[in-house]
Amino acid sequence: MNISWHQGHVIPFDRQQLLGHASLTVWLTGLSGSGKSTLAFGLEYKLVQAGCLAYALDGDNVRHGLNRDLDFTPVARTENIRRVAETAKLFNEAGVIILCAFISPTTQDREAAKSIVGADNFFEVHVSTPLFECERRDPKGLYQRARNGDLKNFTGIDAPYEIPLQPDIAVDTLAQDFDSCLQLLFDAIQTRTRLSGASNA
Amino acid sequence: MNISWHQGHVIPFDRQQLLGHASLTVWLTGLSGSGKSTLAFGLEYKLVQAGCLAYALDGDNVRHGLNRDLDFTPVARTENIRRVAETAKLFNEAGVIILCAFISPTTQDREAAKSIVGADNFFEVHVSTPLFECERRDPKGLYQRARNGDLKNFTGIDAPYEIPLQPDIAVDTLAQDFDSCLQLLFDAIQTRTRLSGASNA
Repeated sequence: MNISWHQGHVIPFDRQQLLGHASLTVWLTGLSGSGKSTLAFGLEYKLVQAGCLAYALDGDNVRHGLNRDLDFTPVARTENIRRVAETAKLFNEAGVIILCAFISPTTQDREAAKSIVGADNFFEVHVSTPLFECERRDPKGLYQRARNGDLKNFTGIDAPYEIPLQPDIAVDTLAQDFDSCLQLLFDAIQTRTRLSGASNA
Repeated sequence: MNISWHQGHVIPFDRQQLLGHASLTVWLTGLSGSGKSTLAFGLEYKLVQAGCLAYALDGDNVRHGLNRDLDFTPVARTENIRRVAETAKLFNEAGVIILCAFISPTTQDREAAKSIVGADNFFEVHVSTPLFECERRDPKGLYQRARNGDLKNFTGIDAPYEIPLQPDIAVDTLAQDFDSCLQLLFDAIQTRTRLSGASNA
């Protein structure tokens, strides 16, 4: 390789002092319709209101831009997750709390994402809303199309979803109300990104 | 496409109030060895010291991560620039001043980057250090290898560099000393990212 690593002069401490918090990758995994993106954008809003620089990425948004060249074959889905994880790492290096809402159905892809981001900075959230409820909501009509056979490789219908065995947190937006899920995650993120020595005020 | 756009609730104003500045993509283009990355990391340092959230991306770093699957063929170089521009756009949406140091030798690729980022947020810097000086410096020994024929498609030797015709600023790290170039760019970025109504202090 004809490339070498340019080390910047800014250290993480400088960014933490500037922003008042540490960075983190919050990785929300779950079925389509489970509430991942709604939670991610809700968390983004609450965190920014609380003075924390947070930014939400979700599958749909990224596929309109960075990953617009990728389709939904297994290989492309793996590459989609790889690029998102690399992007999350860059955001973390910049000091930002990044909220990634991706179905990310396989343990292997999630473990690869964790490895790219770094285990210490990776906070895995399983949005565990059950399939029957996701299919009942069907906000984009995708389950219906998958059941009709118009959509192939749809997670939960004809493609597997491997449940995370040891997520940092699991939330079920059917069993719990949405605001409770949001508050639970918000508090956990605040705890994880609070600087040691900072007040709890 | 089975995807739809999830609009967040956070507006750019919220991020500007949080950070105290607007976001911007500073795009440094120029030959290998012209000083792009050194300027980008120098600017990152000065901006963070001044309380602005800036982050530097350069070709070498990105090719270790996000774009590690790409080589140096023309098609792959175009894809490299496309992904970097998409990443810069995401950083701008998050509120960050992003400093992109990429040879980006073709007008077409730079125009594509500008189009992705949005013209209003794109600040093009031509690091116009002349070829003979870049080759004299040859910090990575790449010019030597290109002259020997060991490296193909090397910009300035056997691949073209199309000079930007209307950059926002041009700096020549041979004609001017490095600190002057840095200060010139720093001042220009501060002017571009200062919030209207903010003091000049």
